[in-house]
This record gives sequence, structure tokens and C-alpha cells, in this order.
Amino acid sequence: MSKKLTSRTEDYSKWYNELVVKADLAENSAVRGCMVIKPYGYAIWEKMQAELDRMFKETGHQNAYFPLFVPKSLFEAEEKNAEGFAKECAIVTHYRLQNDPEKPGKLRVDPEAKLEEELIVRPTSEAIIWNTYRGWIQSYRDLPILINQWANVVRWEMRTRLFLRTAEFLWQEGHTAHATKAEALSEAKLMNNVYATFAEKFMAIPVVQGLKTESERFAGADETYCIEALMQDGKALQAGTSHFLGQNFAKAFDVKFANKEGKQDHVWATSWGVSTRLMGALIMTHSDDNGLVLPPSLAPNQVVIVPIYRGADELNAVSEVAHSIMSDLRAKNISVKYDDRDTQRPGAKFAQYELQGVPLRIAIGARDLANGTVEIARRDTLTKAVIALSDLTETVENLLKDIQDALFKKALDFRDSHITEVETFEEFKKVLETKTGFISAHWDGTTETEDKIKELTKATIRCIPLEGKVEAGVCVYSGNPSKRRVLFAKAY
Amino acid sequence: MSKKLTSRTEDYSKWYNELVVKADLAENSAVRGCMVIKPYGYAIWEKMQAELDRMFKETGHQNAYFPLFVPKSLFEAEEKNAEGFAKECAIVTHYRLQNDPEKPGKLRVDPEAKLEEELIVRPTSEAIIWNTYRGWIQSYRDLPILINQWANVVRWEMRTRLFLRTAEFLWQEGHTAHATKAEALSEAKLMNNVYATFAEKFMAIPVVQGLKTESERFAGADETYCIEALMQDGKALQAGTSHFLGQNFAKAFDVKFANKEGKQDHVWATSWGVSTRLMGALIMTHSDDNGLVLPPSLAPNQVVIVPIYRGADELNAVSEVAHSIMSDLRAKNISVKYDDRDTQRPGAKFAQYELQGVPLRIAIGARDLANGTVEIARRDTLTKAVIALSDLTETVENLLKDIQDALFKKALDFRDSHITEVETFEEFKKVLETKTGFISAHWDGTTETEDKIKELTKATIRCIPLEGKVEAGVCVYSGNPSKRRVLFAKAY
Repeated sequence: MSKKLTSRTEDYSKWYNELVVKADLAENSAVRGCMVIKPYGYAIWEKMQAELDRMFKETGHQNAYFPLFVPKSLFEAEEKNAEGFAKECAIVTHYRLQNDPEKPGKLRVDPEAKLEEELIVRPTSEAIIWNTYRGWIQSYRDLPILINQWANVVRWEMRTRLFLRTAEFLWQEGHTAHATKAEALSEAKLMNNVYATFAEKFMAIPVVQGLKTESERFAGADETYCIEALMQDGKALQAGTSHFLGQNFAKAFDVKFANKEGKQDHVWATSWGVSTRLMGALIMTHSDDNGLVLPPSLAPNQVVIVPIYRGADELNAVSEVAHSIMSDLRAKNISVKYDDRDTQRPGAKFAQYELQGVPLRIAIGARDLANGTVEIARRDTLTKAVIALSDLTETVENLLKDIQDALFKKALDFRDSHITEVETFEEFKKVLETKTGFISAHWDGTTETEDKIKELTKATIRCIPLEGKVEAGVCVYSGNPSKRRVLFAKAY
Repeated sequence: MSKKLTSRTEDYSKWYNELVVKADLAENSAVRGCMVIKPYGYAIWEKMQAELDRMFKETGHQNAYFPLFVPKSLFEAEEKNAEGFAKECAIVTHYRLQNDPEKPGKLRVDPEAKLEEELIVRPTSEAIIWNTYRGWIQSYRDLPILINQWANVVRWEMRTRLFLRTAEFLWQEGHTAHATKAEALSEAKLMNNVYATFAEKFMAIPVVQGLKTESERFAGADETYCIEALMQDGKALQAGTSHFLGQNFAKAFDVKFANKEGKQDHVWATSWGVSTRLMGALIMTHSDDNGLVLPPSLAPNQVVIVPIYRGADELNAVSEVAHSIMSDLRAKNISVKYDDRDTQRPGAKFAQYELQGVPLRIAIGARDLANGTVEIARRDTLTKAVIALSDLTETVENLLKDIQDALFKKALDFRDSHITEVETFEEFKKVLETKTGFISAHWDGTTETEDKIKELTKATIRCIPLEGKVEAGVCVYSGNPSKRRVLFAKAY
């Protein structure tokens, strides 16, 4: 398979699909819509998990684990939630296979082994969790409950794409229970904020925090907070959501508590999640026609060292220096790999690490040994420099910090230059045809207008920004009065 | 619910079930046979995961993720494996629910949304993984593949018990591919050894390493290595297994490679796993009639500090000392919790931490402040001592080490005093009636004898110990010649 990628301008979608496979991040499996996350891709996901988990614990949450299956009677208890997920779910109906009497060596479902009640493979866990919380909550003393779960979920999507939309995906889902509406609302906002901080500081992806419109809300939520990012092709990507669930699940599952005055009340809820979809956001925000570009904070290897040598003596001399560099870098908590495979030439190694987005590449040859230097190459800018060995550790530390900052800055500049304020529907359509990106426009607040715009342009309201401009205006489509601008875009 | 547990002598099984629930480790869910792992139980599992993950990576393995579902045609490809798991598996047959026309507000499976091919929820992942490996392996240069996966699996067991046997459980499964038989065999042994080291050093559970007999092997394996532990009721528990799979899966899934001479050969395989069942082993090895006893290396909180006070002034003075102790202990990487809740009295807190197995409890009262002392209580021995505050950090460090060692020593003494060598079947049966534990006996090597002994006594061959006595003898049941002793026991 050629290492060369289709360019982004040629076919952005093809570029993405090729990059995911060629950089060894993931591939399609034998199961429709389900992916295999390969070790290199999984190592990046593990880094995301570790940091998110740290942030969740720092904000008082604990991990737990709830069943994979949701009995149908629980699944249907919260009506809107059930309606939202019923059309795309995997359903377990039987619990045994038997030899197929008509096809020797083959198995078939044993018709006798039918479950009394069908089990839905969780598309999300509100139902099973709130059914459990009923047993945990009697009084205000049992609240809040601040729980997170790392899990796999299944949504039987018809059109799937690696990381962006898969039938099974990995995620975390927080599920919290509170005594008051105010507390639940502030939890939902807090966790959306945690996601925004994670996206910006860790993934170097600028995001807009906002509220979803009623028609884009999570099924069963009273409000959905979200973080929205902009990809290089000008399409938006919802990177995380945090839901204020009101008392909807408490009512559906009869979860009440005695408040301080001894009065019974339904519990208030939130849920919030991010998934392996973040991998798609990461790839599409930073990468280029040469392959993956990773922010140093998520790179499984921040630095790779490649020896340039002829013969064993040169290799030994280079290796000695390489090992000394590695121990210096590791002492500074910098992850570094030394690639002295003799089955690959340096050029092939350079190409591989470029494709896989290793932030810094150090090459050491015989001439470097003589001069006390190394060559260092930056993945993001594709620039090289010769550095004195004595300055190397400090240089690497500074460069990693620079790269992290530069990637964010670049993505932020791109995003900010792709938010266009429009006043008329003509302008609106023109932006979608030419520049793409976010369109900041007035909207009259009705689902009718929202639907009509979607039908005509395929653009949806990505969010009502939390820090958006509040100014009176007229709706870009209906001409009716509007109190504030919202962000429209075509989206993943 | 009373905090008092049924005693072990009264009803060991009831004691276990009560302990798991009352110590807040896990509970049964609305889904038959599936459990909810509560935050305290999950925190212990996370500590196991972290250490195992570290050990896997140290031995060169990487994590990845494969689909939850196995299409039936892949599931049945390796015949023995399929046969072993077909009778107890969850099967997805449909992908959509619809409104039930006969029951308003209810949903039913949409008969139109039947899958073309049924999907089995993975009971283990050899099939889906080896089907994937076919695409990854062409030449010896692609080998070895050393991959681990952290995942949930489902086995539709009829009789379930929290942690010990559940329809869904969490585990890790390693799946490796090798160019030679010798290399695969040594991988299988290495990982069994990793499990043994983890059990003994980390969980303080002594284990016997051995080989399973043919009838106890993993379905599809040529050899199964295992670690076997002994519970306090004298029953054995299989705590981990590591399988040498030969070329069985490579043949079933047509996975070949070109060796160094350019010749095509099937790839050699291993798989190995431990699961949340380890939680059951942990509980049953160390705990007592007062509740959970945890080795310090697995305790979410190694130390808890409880203030004894009257009024705000005393609490403030105690809290100041407590915070200073906490920062000293944390500087030594000791996890410590300060429980200054005013909704619970000290006695209730003591009882809770005893039930939950916190290794060390420190109580600080006004008299301690005057004397420059604290009271420190050990969970494992239920002993208390008054310690000078100035010696506290060192004392805690030493005590934690002592407790870890003492728990292992105690379990080892128990295990070693419960291995009985017998020469006759009368003796064999007598041990099972009176002392229980492992029975070391000669066996003629036939499945027939093994089955007969199982039928008559319910005891099975737990393993053929790797370091067992090799001595000629006669089979305890058949009287036929035997080359070595094996370990029998009743088992979980």
C-alpha cells in the first residue's frame, strides 16, 4: 500500500479515511460499522482517558460500572429517551446456539433459548443507572451522587466512518444525582467546562461552548450543553455534550429523596459524555497532507531518535549517544523512542514517523558525533535545525511546548477566520457555498425556521454560544425579531 | 440494613454475599446475572488494572480494542472454541425497536429489522481477533504481535454470584501471534508467571502455577496454564489462565506468514486473561467476620483519619494536625482520607472502615493533642497502639509493609496447611469431608478416571503443578501407574 495520502484539497473525506488506516490508528472490522482500534490509535485514546479521568476525579467524581444490557421494560420507561434511541439499537433475543441440523459444522440460534424479555445493548446508560440509583437514594444525605463510567456503547447507525460515527464506540458517561435544580444545572455547566478545558489545553482544539436548540438536544434532556469544534474542511464537529436532565429520569424511575425538611421530592440529574469521536476531531483539526500531526500532550512518543550509520561501529557510537539522550529526556518526563531497527532505512523511518505524527524527530549520524550536534525536525512545521548536543534537552522541552501552543494558535486562527456574521439569507447561502465554517446569524427561536434552514442548506444550528453577542436583530430566514446570534454550520 | 455480617463458620457463602453488598463493592442489577460494580469496588479493580497494565507493558505488550460482536460465521470457525461457548452466549438478532401496536407506550422488536447474520456478544475474542490478524500478518517481520485488550465479555451462565460468576464481567485478554511454537509456549508461560507474581506480590494471594488437564482446558487451546488459589473455606479458585493455542486459530482463520526462508507457515498463538473474578478471590482470601480486609497495595484508602472531638474548637485543632499528617503521608505516596463528616459519630465511622477494610485507622482526640500522640488501629489484626506523632509517618510506612507481608504469610500458611497428600481413595474422600483444601494425589492421566472422581466426590483436578513433586506412584482411584502427583479440590 502506498504511503502517500490523497491531499486534503483533492478529497478531504478520502484523505481522512486513508490517514486513519495508514497511520495505524484504526480499521474497519468484519462487523458492520464496528472498528478495530489499533495499538497506535489506542495509545492516543489512553492518553485522553488518563487526563479526562484525572479531571473527573479532581472534580469529585468516582468511577463505577453498570450492565451492558438494558431490559426492554427499563429502556422504554423514559419515553423521549426511548424514542430517541429505539430506531438504532442492537437487541439480544436469545442466549444459546445449537448445531444446525441442516448444515453440518454450522451453528444456529436455538429457538428454545428465547429470552423472556429482550435486552437492548446500551446506547447510553441513563435507564439502567437511574433504575439502580432508586435503591441508593433515600435522603438528601445520599446526594449528590457523582459517578462516571468508562464503557462501550452501541448505536446501530446506518452510515458509519472510523472514529466519527461507528456502531460500537468507546466513551465515558457521567451520571450525577442532585437535591436541587440549581446544583444539577451547575454540574452540567461544570462538566461542559471540563470538556472545553480538555479540548483546548490538551488536544489543542479551540471549541465554542454553547447550548443546543430544542431539536438538537439529547433525547430526555431539558438542556444540552456542548462543545463545538471546526474542522479544516469548514465543517463543525460536536466534540462533547453535557445534559441537564431535570427530573425526567427520576420521574420515569421513581427516584425520590427526603429533603432537609423531610419532604419527598424527585432527584435532579445530569449526564455527560465524550467518546472515541474525539480521535476524529483530533485528526481533522491538526493533520496535513503528509499525515497525522499530534499535539505533544497526546503523542504516544513525543520524540523519536533515528540513527544514521554505516556498519556496526558507527551504530554503536550513535547508540551510546542516543541512550544518553533518552535518559536525559525521560528524566524530564518526555517520552522517547529509539528506532534502531536494521530492517528499515532511515528514509522509511522518517516517512513513518511523519505519517504517524511524532512531534519531534532527532537524527544522529557520524558527522553529528564529530561535531557534537544532532539534527532535529519538527513535525508540525516540517522544519529542521542542527542543535548542539549540550543544548538538546532544553531545546526539546521548549520545542514541545512551542508545538503544543502553535497547534492551538493555528487552529484558533483558522476557526476565528471561519466565523462569518451574516444578515441576509442570500449571504448565508453564499458563505456555505464559498467559505464554509461557522455562520453567526440571527434566528427567531422557532424549530420551524431551524428545520426550514436545514432543509434548504443542510446547515444546522450547532449551538447558542454561552458567550455569544446578545443583540437584537431580525431572523436571517423569517425576518422575525431575534434576541441573539447563534452559530450555524454543516456538521459531522 | 444491619451492618453485622453472618459469620464465616455459620454460612460461608452467605457471609461472602453479604460482605460484597455491605462493604459497597457490588450488587445485583435488573439484568439477570449482571452486576453493578459500585465505586468502592471499582476503585479496587482500577488498582488491579493499573498494576497489571504496567506489567503487561513492561513485558512488551500494547493495548488495542476489537469489536464487542462476533458474526456467527466467525464464531463457529474454530470448532472446539465454538462448541465451548455456544451453549451460553448472548445473541443479537435485531437492530430496531418500534411502537407496539397492541400496547400503547410500549416498544417491541421490529420484525423487519432482522440482521442478515446473527451477532454473538463476545464471550472471548479469539475469533474476531484472529480474523483481524489475518490482515496484519504477511511475513515473520510482522511477528510477534503482542496485544492486550481491556473489555467486557458475556457468558450466559445459569447460576451466577457477584464477582465469581456473572453473565457480564470485565477482564483483560491478551492475544499474541508468534513465528514459532517455542516462542508461543514461552509467552504463555511468561504471562502465567506475570499473573502469579501479581497475585502474590500485589494481592497477597499465594497461588500454585500449573497446567490444566485436557478436559479442563480452554476450548480451542493445546495447553492451559493457570494459577490456582485456595479460599478460606477450603475451596480452590482459578484466578487466571494463559493458553497456548497452537496453530488452531491460525488454521481456522487462515493466518499464514512467510518465514525467513520464504516458506509459508501458520502462525502460533497464545491468549491469557484475568477478570473481575479476582475481586472474589481477594475478598475470600483475606476478609474476616468483621468485613473486608485489603492488602495495602490494593486499598483505595490505605489510611483513614477520624477526628474525636466536642465542639468546633476541638475539631479545628484536630483538623490542623490531621491535615499535617495527610500531607506527610501523601508525600510518601500513601493514600489517606480524612473523615470529618458531622453526620456520623466516630463509632459508626470505625465500623464502616472496618467493614470496608481500610488497612490503618488513625484516631485523634483532644487528649492526643495534649500528649502529642495518635491512636492507630490495624484492620488485619484488629489491634491498636498509641504512637508519638513524631514517629507517625515512619510507623505508617512500616505498618503498611508489615500488613502486606502478614496477609500473604497468613494466606500462605493456611494454603500450605491445607494441601494433604493422600495415597488411597478412602483418604481422599475423608479429606474432602473433614479438612478440605487441596489434595495432592497420584492420577493415572486418563479423562475417564478424572471424570469418575469428579462424579463421586465433586472434586476436580485443579492443575498439574509446574513445580510439583515428580515421583512414580499409583493412581489414587484406578491403581494404575502414575508419574506425578496432581492437585485436586472442590472449586469455585
